[in-house]
This record gives sequence, C-alpha cells and structure tokens, in this order.
Amino acid sequence: MASGTRTDARGLGEGAAPSATQSTAYSAPESGEPPTPALERLFNPRGIAVVGASADLGRIGGQPIKALTEARYAGRIYPVNPKYAEVGGMRCYRSIADIDGDCDLALIALSAGAVAAAVEACGAKGIRFAIILSSGFKEIGEGGRALETALKDAGRRSGVRLIGPNCQGVLSIPNRLFATFGAIAQETALRAGAVSMAFQSGGFGFGVMLLCEEMGIGFRHCVSVGNEVDITTPELLDAFLDDPHTKVACAYVEGVSDGRALMAAGRKSIDVGKPVLVWKAGKSAVGRRAAGSHTANITGSSDVFRAAARQSGIIEVGCVEDMVDLFRVFTSCRPPHGNRVGVLGISGGSGIVFADAAADRGLVLPDFAPDTTATLRNVIPVFGSAANPADLTADVFNNIASFTEAMTIVLDDPGIDQLCLLLASLPGAHALNAAQAIVAAAQRSDKPILVGWSARRNRAAAAYEVLERAGIPIISTPERLARASAALAAFADTRRRLSRRAVSMPAAAALPMPNALLEKAQLSEAEGKQLLAMYGIPVTRDVLIEADDRMDLSGLDIVFPVAVKIVSADIPHKTDVGGVQLDIADRDALQAAVRAVLANVKRLMPEARIDGIMISEMIRDGRETLVGVVNDEAFGPTVVFGLGGIFVEVLRDVSYRVAPFDIETAREMVGELRSRILFDGYRGSPALDVDALCRTLVRISEMAWHLRTRLASLDINPLFVRPGGWGVVAADAVVTLGG
Amino acid sequence: MASGTRTDARGLGEGAAPSATQSTAYSAPESGEPPTPALERLFNPRGIAVVGASADLGRIGGQPIKALTEARYAGRIYPVNPKYAEVGGMRCYRSIADIDGDCDLALIALSAGAVAAAVEACGAKGIRFAIILSSGFKEIGEGGRALETALKDAGRRSGVRLIGPNCQGVLSIPNRLFATFGAIAQETALRAGAVSMAFQSGGFGFGVMLLCEEMGIGFRHCVSVGNEVDITTPELLDAFLDDPHTKVACAYVEGVSDGRALMAAGRKSIDVGKPVLVWKAGKSAVGRRAAGSHTANITGSSDVFRAAARQSGIIEVGCVEDMVDLFRVFTSCRPPHGNRVGVLGISGGSGIVFADAAADRGLVLPDFAPDTTATLRNVIPVFGSAANPADLTADVFNNIASFTEAMTIVLDDPGIDQLCLLLASLPGAHALNAAQAIVAAAQRSDKPILVGWSARRNRAAAAYEVLERAGIPIISTPERLARASAALAAFADTRRRLSRRAVSMPAAAALPMPNALLEKAQLSEAEGKQLLAMYGIPVTRDVLIEADDRMDLSGLDIVFPVAVKIVSADIPHKTDVGGVQLDIADRDALQAAVRAVLANVKRLMPEARIDGIMISEMIRDGRETLVGVVNDEAFGPTVVFGLGGIFVEVLRDVSYRVAPFDIETAREMVGELRSRILFDGYRGSPALDVDALCRTLVRISEMAWHLRTRLASLDINPLFVRPGGWGVVAADAVVTLGG
Repeated sequence: MASGTRTDARGLGEGAAPSATQSTAYSAPESGEPPTPALERLFNPRGIAVVGASADLGRIGGQPIKALTEARYAGRIYPVNPKYAEVGGMRCYRSIADIDGDCDLALIALSAGAVAAAVEACGAKGIRFAIILSSGFKEIGEGGRALETALKDAGRRSGVRLIGPNCQGVLSIPNRLFATFGAIAQETALRAGAVSMAFQSGGFGFGVMLLCEEMGIGFRHCVSVGNEVDITTPELLDAFLDDPHTKVACAYVEGVSDGRALMAAGRKSIDVGKPVLVWKAGKSAVGRRAAGSHTANITGSSDVFRAAARQSGIIEVGCVEDMVDLFRVFTSCRPPHGNRVGVLGISGGSGIVFADAAADRGLVLPDFAPDTTATLRNVIPVFGSAANPADLTADVFNNIASFTEAMTIVLDDPGIDQLCLLLASLPGAHALNAAQAIVAAAQRSDKPILVGWSARRNRAAAAYEVLERAGIPIISTPERLARASAALAAFADTRRRLSRRAVSMPAAAALPMPNALLEKAQLSEAEGKQLLAMYGIPVTRDVLIEADDRMDLSGLDIVFPVAVKIVSADIPHKTDVGGVQLDIADRDALQAAVRAVLANVKRLMPEARIDGIMISEMIRDGRETLVGVVNDEAFGPTVVFGLGGIFVEVLRDVSYRVAPFDIETAREMVGELRSRILFDGYRGSPALDVDALCRTLVRISEMAWHLRTRLASLDINPLFVRPGGWGVVAADAVVTLGG
Repeated sequence: MASGTRTDARGLGEGAAPSATQSTAYSAPESGEPPTPALERLFNPRGIAVVGASADLGRIGGQPIKALTEARYAGRIYPVNPKYAEVGGMRCYRSIADIDGDCDLALIALSAGAVAAAVEACGAKGIRFAIILSSGFKEIGEGGRALETALKDAGRRSGVRLIGPNCQGVLSIPNRLFATFGAIAQETALRAGAVSMAFQSGGFGFGVMLLCEEMGIGFRHCVSVGNEVDITTPELLDAFLDDPHTKVACAYVEGVSDGRALMAAGRKSIDVGKPVLVWKAGKSAVGRRAAGSHTANITGSSDVFRAAARQSGIIEVGCVEDMVDLFRVFTSCRPPHGNRVGVLGISGGSGIVFADAAADRGLVLPDFAPDTTATLRNVIPVFGSAANPADLTADVFNNIASFTEAMTIVLDDPGIDQLCLLLASLPGAHALNAAQAIVAAAQRSDKPILVGWSARRNRAAAAYEVLERAGIPIISTPERLARASAALAAFADTRRRLSRRAVSMPAAAALPMPNALLEKAQLSEAEGKQLLAMYGIPVTRDVLIEADDRMDLSGLDIVFPVAVKIVSADIPHKTDVGGVQLDIADRDALQAAVRAVLANVKRLMPEARIDGIMISEMIRDGRETLVGVVNDEAFGPTVVFGLGGIFVEVLRDVSYRVAPFDIETAREMVGELRSRILFDGYRGSPALDVDALCRTLVRISEMAWHLRTRLASLDINPLFVRPGGWGVVAADAVVTLGG
C-alpha cells in the first residue's frame, strides 16, 4: 500500500480561490504590465550551455547545437566538453565553470552517472534551469533509481530547476529555442502560435505537435517532461496559464503523480478563462490502495481521472483531430453565452450531419424566432429551407448581399448563441466574397462564428487567408465543426458552473479525529458506524449484545422487525458466511436468529474473532444505495455513489467525485446516474430525500479528506435513501484503514 | 399510418443465398471472365448526350461539357439544344432524335416540366441511361410530386434507367466520366482507385469525396443519387459489389426507402468479401407506424438501422477520417484470422495510445508467446520493452536487421493475427530502410501489416512511396490505426459469423393466417394471446368469464394464486384504469377482485366495450422481459427485446433485430443487453431458460414477418423467462393492427 501522506497536496477548496467571472474572453487581458512567469528563463534563456556537446552534430550532444543555430536562436550557445576546443564553429568550454557570459539554461546530454555533478556545477555558475536529455534513470529500473534520487537532491541543493531526465527537450518557438534532438530538431521552420503543451512521451508528443502543425496550428512552448524529477506537468500547465501569449494549455499524460496539482491547473483555467486540454493515456492501468473493498473493485483509474477532470474544468481529448479543432476554436473564438447554435449551410446533407453530431454533444439547434424565420425566407431561394439548420443553397452566392443578410438575421436572433456556417466545398470567386462577408458579420456581433469548409486550399486560397487573418476558425467537416462548437459552449458553461463552486472546508480542529479507532487496520460494523456518526452521518439504531447464544434477549429495548448481524473486524463480508439474518419479526425469531448466525460463522470462519452480535432496526422504505470511498494513488480520497445491487454490480452505474466537494457537486453526482429517475418517484413510489442524500455525500467527502492519511477505503452498503423529508440511514459500514 | 405493403420486399432469408466461405481475400477473384454488370454503360458510356446544353460553360448545362472535355472523356459528346448550332466547339443537335452515333447516356439539364418527354426521346433513340440534374420535383413539395411521377412513368415506359432527379451527377474516374456540375466538375485530375460511392446529398457527398482524395484515397464510381426515382442506393451498392475493380462500396444515406434492399447489399458484401460502408445521417428523424405502442415509443429509427447494419454485415461510419482509414485498409489488407494484434513501436506513448483505442474497439493485445518474448529480447535494446505493445526504441534502426527480425518474430507468433507498427515521426534514411524492411516482411507473411506513421511527407517521401506501391496502409496516428485495425478484424469476424447464418423461413402455406382476427384494429388480451398461441408462443393458462360482478365463480377450474384482468380491445393499458388485480389467493378474494376491476373500469372508462374478465395463472418464478414488434417504415417488422420495468423504461437497455431471424441472431439479441448477466443466475437466483427464450424470439420474428402487411405493433409485456428447462410464458399481449 502506498503512503497515505502522498495525498497531502492542496485541497481543492484551499488551492483555488473563488474566482471572479467578469472576464468574458478566453484570452488573458493583454493590457497593463505583463507578469513575469516563474519559468520565463527556461523558455527564453539569455544563453544556453550544451553539456556533453558532441562534435558530431548527428549525435544527441550535437543535434541541439545544430537546431539552435538553424533556428537562429539569438542568445549565446556554450558547448561544454573537455574533449573539444570547438564544436559547430563555436568555442567549446572545458567545464561549466569556464562559461564566460549570460547563461540561464543548461542542456545536459552526459551519461546518467555524470548528470548530478553537472547540475551542481550549473548551480554554482548561476544557471537556473537544466534540461536532462540523458536516459538511464528510473526508467531502467533499480539501477537507475538511485541516480534519479541523487539528481533530485542535486537540483534541490543547487537551486537548479530541472526538466527530465529521460526527456526529448524543450521548444519555445517564438524564442527560437530548439533545445531538443530527434525528428523534431529538424523542424526549425515551425510557425509560432498560441498553444503550449507538455507531454510525458517525447516521441508521441512531438509527433502530435508536428501533425497539428501540418493542420495549421502554431505552438508556443512545448515540453517533453521525461521522468518529471522536479518540474512536473501541472507546474508547466500553471505556467502556461500565466503566460499572456498562451491561449490554450495542453498536456499528454500517462501517469498522474499529483492529481490534486493537475486539478488545481484545471481550476485555474476556469479562473483565467483559458482551457486546459488533457489527453490521459493508459486507461487500462489501475492503481488502488485497497483491492479488497467493493468500491475499489468497481473503480478504474480512468473513472477517477474523468471525475477529476469534470470537477476541475479540465477538457479531456483523445485524438489528434479533436485537439487540432479545439486548438483552433479556443485560440480564436469568443465564449458563447449558451449552447444554442444557428446553422446556415449550402447543402442539406451537411446540415443533417451537423445536427446529428451536435445532438450527441449536447448542443441545441433551436427553432429560430418567428421573426427570424420570416425574414430569412425573403433571402433564401424557394428550394432552400429557413428552418434551423437552414439551407441557403449555393444560389445565395449569386448575390452576396443575401448571404450577409442571412448571417445578420441569425446573429440578431436572441435565441442563438453561436453561428455555424457550412460552406461545403465552395470554390473560387464566390468563396472570396463569402469570406469577406463573414469577416464583416463577425465584426458586428459578439457571438462566435465558426466555418465548416472543405474546399481544397488551392481552390479557395484567398478566401481562407481572409478568414485566417480575421481569426475565424475553419474546420473541414460538419461533424468535426459540431464537436468543436460543442466544446466551445461546454467550456463556457463549465466556467459559469464551476466559478460559483467553492468547498468550505470545516477547520481541521473542529473535526473529530478518532485516534483510538484509527489505530486499527479494519473496523467492525459497529466501529465503522461509530466513525460515521462522529461525522454526522445518520446510521441505523443498533443494539450490541455479547456473542452468547443462550443469552436472555427479552429485556432488550428494540422495535421489531430487526436484523441480526455478526460483529467482527475479521469478517468484512458478513453475508457470505451466514452472518446476517433479516426481517426478524419477534423475540422467538430473534433468539433463533442469534443462534443461527453464531453457528454459521463458527462453522465457516472458525478463526474469526467475534466481538458480539448487532441487533439493528430494519429500514423498510427508501432505496438501497452504495456510497464508497477509495483513496486513489493519484487523486487521493474519492467518493463513489450508485444505486445498490444490479445497478452497481451489473450495470456499473456509478459516479465519482474527488473529495472534498460541495452540495452542487453532490447533486451532479446523483444527476449523472443513468438510474437517477428512480430518486424522483418512479411508477408511484414516492420521491426520495435527495437533499439529505446530497448533504450526506458532502459530509462523507469531508470525512474522507480529513482522514485521508489513514482511510484506505469505505463501503456504506447500503445507505438507505428514504422518502422526501425522512433523510438517509447507513445500514452497514466496512472501513479499511492503512497507509 | 403508412401502408403495410411497403415492406413487401425481399425477406432476408429469401434474397440472400447461404454463402460460401472459401474466399479468404476481400477482393473478388480477378481470374476468369469478368462479369458485365447491369450498370456498365452508365459508368462507361460510348457516347453522352447533354440535353439542355448551354453555350455558357459556367451554367449547369455547360459545366459537364467542359468537365468531360477537360477530363479527356474518350467517347463522343452530343450537346442537344435547338438554340445553338455549336457548343464548346462541338456540333450541337436540335433534338435527341438527331444524334448520329453511339450514345448510351443522357445528361438532362432541362427545366423540370420538360424532363419526362426528353426521357421518352432517349428511349426512342436507344439511350439506356439518363442522369437528371434538374431540380423542381418532389423536393419542392406538392407541385413537383406530379412531375416526379410522370418522370418515373416515362422511365419505365421507355426502358431508360434513371439517376436523379435533383442530383449532382455521376463520376467514373477510370472512364473519365465527369457527368456533373459544381465544385467537383473542376476536379478532373482526381486519381482513380478502388472505392465506389453513392450519396443522397450531392454537395456533402462530393465534398467528402474531395476530402478523402486529399488524404490519398482514389475513387472509381461516385453517384449523387438525388431523389432516387429509379436507380436507388441499394442497387448501386449491389452493382459496386459486382464490379471486379471496386474493393470497397460506400453510401451516404439520409432516408432509407427500402431497408431490406440495403440489408441485401450488406449480405452480399459478406458473400463476396468486400465491405459496404454506410454513413446514416438524420438520426433524430423517427418514422413509426404505431406511436401508441410501448415498444414503438422506445424505438428510434437509428436503433433499427443499427440493428439492420449489424445483422446484415454493413459497417457504419460517421466521420470522414474513419471513412478514409477504412478505405485505406480495406483496399489493401488481407483479412486477419482473428482480433489479436501484435504491436511494435519506437515510442512508448504511441503503444499506450494504441492499446487504449484497441481496447475500446474489441481488439486484443495478447501477451506474446514465451518464445516470442525471449527472442524479441535479443533484438530490443535494454531500455526498450519486449511486452506487447513492444517498444523497440528508435535505436533499432541503427541496425535494420534487428527491425526485420523483430517483425518476423511477431509475425511468426501463432497467437497474433495482425501486426501494427508504430513509427512515430521517423524521418530520412532510417525511414526508407524501415519501409523496405516492412515490404519484405509483408511478402513473407499472410498476416496483415498496418503502419502508423506521422512523419511529414517531405521527410519520408521515398519511404511512403515504397509502402504505397506495396499496398501497405499508412495511418497517421496510433488511435486511428487501432480503430482501422479493429474494423479490419471486425469485418473478417462478421463474415465468419454471418456466412453461417440462414433463416429457414417456414413455407407461408404452413403458417396460420388468422383472417378473422386480422380484420380488427386492436385485439383484446385474449385475442392477442390466441394469436401468439397459433404461432407456438406459450401463453398463460387463462379462464375467460363474462363481465358480471354477481356471477358465481365457485365452479371454475383454476389453481390459485391468480390474476384478474379486464378484457377489452378499447383498453390497451389495463393497469392505468384499475383493470388488473394480482396475487389473488382464494375464491373470496377472487369475487372481490372481479367486482373491483369492473367498478374501476366503469368509473374511469365508462365508454369502453367490455368483452369479459380474464382469470390468469400467476407466474411466480423467472424474470419479466418485454418482447415487442414494431413495423418500421424502412425496414419492416422488427423485434425488440429487453428486461422489463426499469431496464426498458429507465435504462433503455433493449436490443433490436429485423424479422425474421435465426436462433443465433436471437442469442446475439440477448447477449447485447447490458443486463444479460441476470439471465445467467444472479446472486443465487437460478439460471433462466435462455434456449426457450431464443426459440420464442425466433417464432415471434417469423410471426412478425408473416403478418407484416397487417401487424402495426405488438407488446408482450411481460414475457416471463423461467428457470432453465421451464420455458417462457407470455402473460400479456397488446396487438395493434393497421395498414
């Protein structure tokens, strides 16, 4: 089991201040003094040392020198290698200490064993950043792990911030920084743009970057993070969001080491209004702390990641085409005020395909207002259609004023938040006229305009340039356009939703810390319920008696019917050993049930330590739900919720949220279930107390966070949710401690 | 309600003969006499009349003349227009009758009212095909509908086969046929290839074609079908499958007019081993015959289409990138023997991304055989990985023999059916060496090899050409590669699965035709069960009594407990009006229940005609399921199956199959449910009689097909599925007739 202290990162509510929502643009305001980000000199160094420089410019120690030269990097380059006097026409230095000018960054391509010392030398020389290209660390197993620890220590001691090791380097296109090797080092003609990216696989990341670039995306900073011994992906995302010229931050992530920091980057993206896109790979790999728990068994690592993304505002992507389209719209479009899209096209088919994809992604194509339809009819040919998605037909370009008028009419409709144009493969002079009309319309409206257009570049080059100069995104197919338009609307909606959200953490001192209980490894049901009760979570009325089958039960103060259960920390799954009897109607049956339960357990688990017998009230109304807690390796304590029985076990109809969270988040958890209608009163059964359920989910989340260093997992199975006004009751609790 | 006779199309089992499975390649055998397809002269005409030719080559009557000339169409072009003596430097004919040479095809660009007469003139002249570019028919509403009927009649009378009207024309690239107008008419340099396509939206279809072409796909025949007055999409798909040079047939479909014909094209694709890809748009539009029925209410048109596609072997696509990738692999790859993929990459990230996408699509990345792993280890550097997906690292290209050896080792592993290579953005000389090694490996193995490669064209041009010449597909990203690889495996699997499948239709004469019942519009429960029983579907033991609340019930031969239900064709939803009482234990309770049911119905539906009271046995074991039939506008009778209650109503956990079908298909229906585990014995409940269930589903499908001209909808809700060996029992039946 991993250490519980790993999750001691920022709490969600602690790290992110409640955000202001006055910003209406995705880009940060460019007025005023630009901030000086902490990593400024990493991306814009005044000089670069190449430590382990090679005279062979085809080798790893030579390629960056060639790339920096070809890219016309403006600062000085200091090759360092005692073997050479000169490398690539430049003076080569015997040592880092010999460097005789401004130097902010060292690129280290030495063998693994020599890297830590080089980092110390950088520190002594005042070089603040080092990129370790060398391999031979953690990734090769035990032998490299010690070297990695030594490297980490060297960085910390010397005050040098590190990228890598085992990475492919860093690009900062506007600063002409090509501190890298491999295929990407040959691409010094890459255009600059507003997207910054960090990735845990250099080969894959730079490959994706090249593909995006071919599709017209310009980049700013791109970092292959390698083993992340010091500077991590979340820190880079944070720096990208601080960078006034970055409009979109993106990461490719295989393993998340600090999920809370990643979520903090998401929350910051909400505050500053620039999206963070994350491609999470490796969905089959699962990290768990307590595989014995039921909740843990149904939880995969991608479930928790997905919940964390939703909760923090991170946008998940999973293919290069989606990335390209989202880069395009987020670097150029204003945020829409809602998810209602007006569509004007010149081919019926495109409109239908757009509508299909829009419906899949939560976009709405509302009916136009009656006025809109009436005036549209005047400009659309009789064989077109004025209903959303409207078909203007290609004839509309015979008189470009009609096209302009159609756009204006739809942009003026108060029920429309975004305008999507579908121009099919319109070529030539019509294309140019159309582009100019679109730019004019965009200047008169604050609603985003997106264009679907598949004409070949050579058939509409002038038109494309007009749109590109005006920052109007062109996306080739209607289905991709709909997805991009939906993403734009969804991020604006997420900002509105999450910016109101704040977790008011109870002061740690005000919360109980049941130290005696927490020393155990496994709590009995009685102890588990005691723990829940301390956190204000309602539990069944229980009477504990000794495990004696000849005891006289006639004096007990109980109301029938009751349940009888064995109490033993050694038996988390009581039903499996005959340790539970339900629906006991009277005292005779009770006596028999106690005898039966004791006999069953003695036969099936003779070695279990029996703490007693619990006589519990039977909850007869409401629905059985499961509330669990897993302590995820990456994200820490996470609450799981679903309806009991087949819903959880067969249909996996469960929702997740990283703890702690507020009541709005709890409502989302319930609302996400496919089976949510069962809470509203289904087929004559009464509506259930969802308010009490949500308050309880919040309390459980606070308890999970408070006990995060000890709580391995929790199953409340079932938690009865009773009819409206009657609250909830936990009828069982299995608590596993660890760490 | 639409006419029931619309579905009088080929039955699935009647149209498609049981197929041979000896063919192992996707391409049809090219040896022997090539067949002469029925539409040969449409795609390869000896001469073309352009009727309504325009001297302005920018107009619709002029653009095809310009395009055909620029494309160097080899036959003669006959412009026809009495206004001109010459068009585009060619003699212009006064009339179709004046044409003085071979002519197989007429392109008609006249006003709508003049088209039918021109078609008659074509017939008189012996011109066998006409493409009607003109608009003004069905698509403009009532006014055009009569013209469309006249056109259809003219075609039938004169023996001229028609494409359109309201279409954008036909391309046959190898025959230099550019019988079209609009943006596509300018693209006469398009390359020829092995994909043929038909589409119901010309603008969207030709736009998609251009995008695919830009991504390297070559086309053969492309048809904008317009209103499909004669030649329909299924007929074209059938012709494409007959064409020995077409390797993939594809259609873009908005509305399906004859679903059975589309399914027949799918079944033929299974027989001949060439895939049919269909993009079905317009998923929100729903066509139903009986919206009052429960089954019909939960059924959307895309549900039925999806089931029909699965059932007939059609591959659904929904975005241009998927189409391109599938075109690429299906035009070049051999069919794999299974879904097990070996992956060799040079970047860890690509392998992980591939594995994620593979898992989503049902591909398996098995562990390599121990031998494979051991020998792979010898050729992979120590910092690589020999586990599937293996990471060879870029170092493997320093000695190309290692790369060759790695491929051979994996191709020789009997547990691997396909090899996928992930070359990231490998450029230059290494790229060329790799490509040559891949081609050599492909020649030594019968397993498909697919390559993921994102190097820019200019960095690996020679390598790409080597692979392209050898017909080895290159796909830019690992996630798209995995999806394409999965599609290849899935089609091979579908062929194995469906080629065994045959519906043995009982001879129509052997089936009952309950004419008296079928004259009604709505059957009572008793009549509905009578109908079911005639088709061998087990129903509950029921006793029918008069609707008299003072009747003496003591003499009835019944076994308690029973249910009491009102019998009335006017009350399809008996529970809603208090017309049902369950769990009646004895004769006194029975008498009270009869009185209560009659009183309820009299109060809530005083106008309903009461046919009597039904006393039914109560089924106490087994699970409630819903079996329904809808008579879909496009596909005809379709069976719907799901577990009752929340599973159907809340979770929409239902499966569909077009009737009739065989027992294997019925098993797939059950296996598709998310809740299928509940049939296997869940949490101690016994396993259910799935065999009897499947036999019953087959019978219901046969009944639905047999009664297709009369049956609007059927709900069997519930059908009890009892424990193994105890069969199934229909406890209710609501039958709506119509048509």
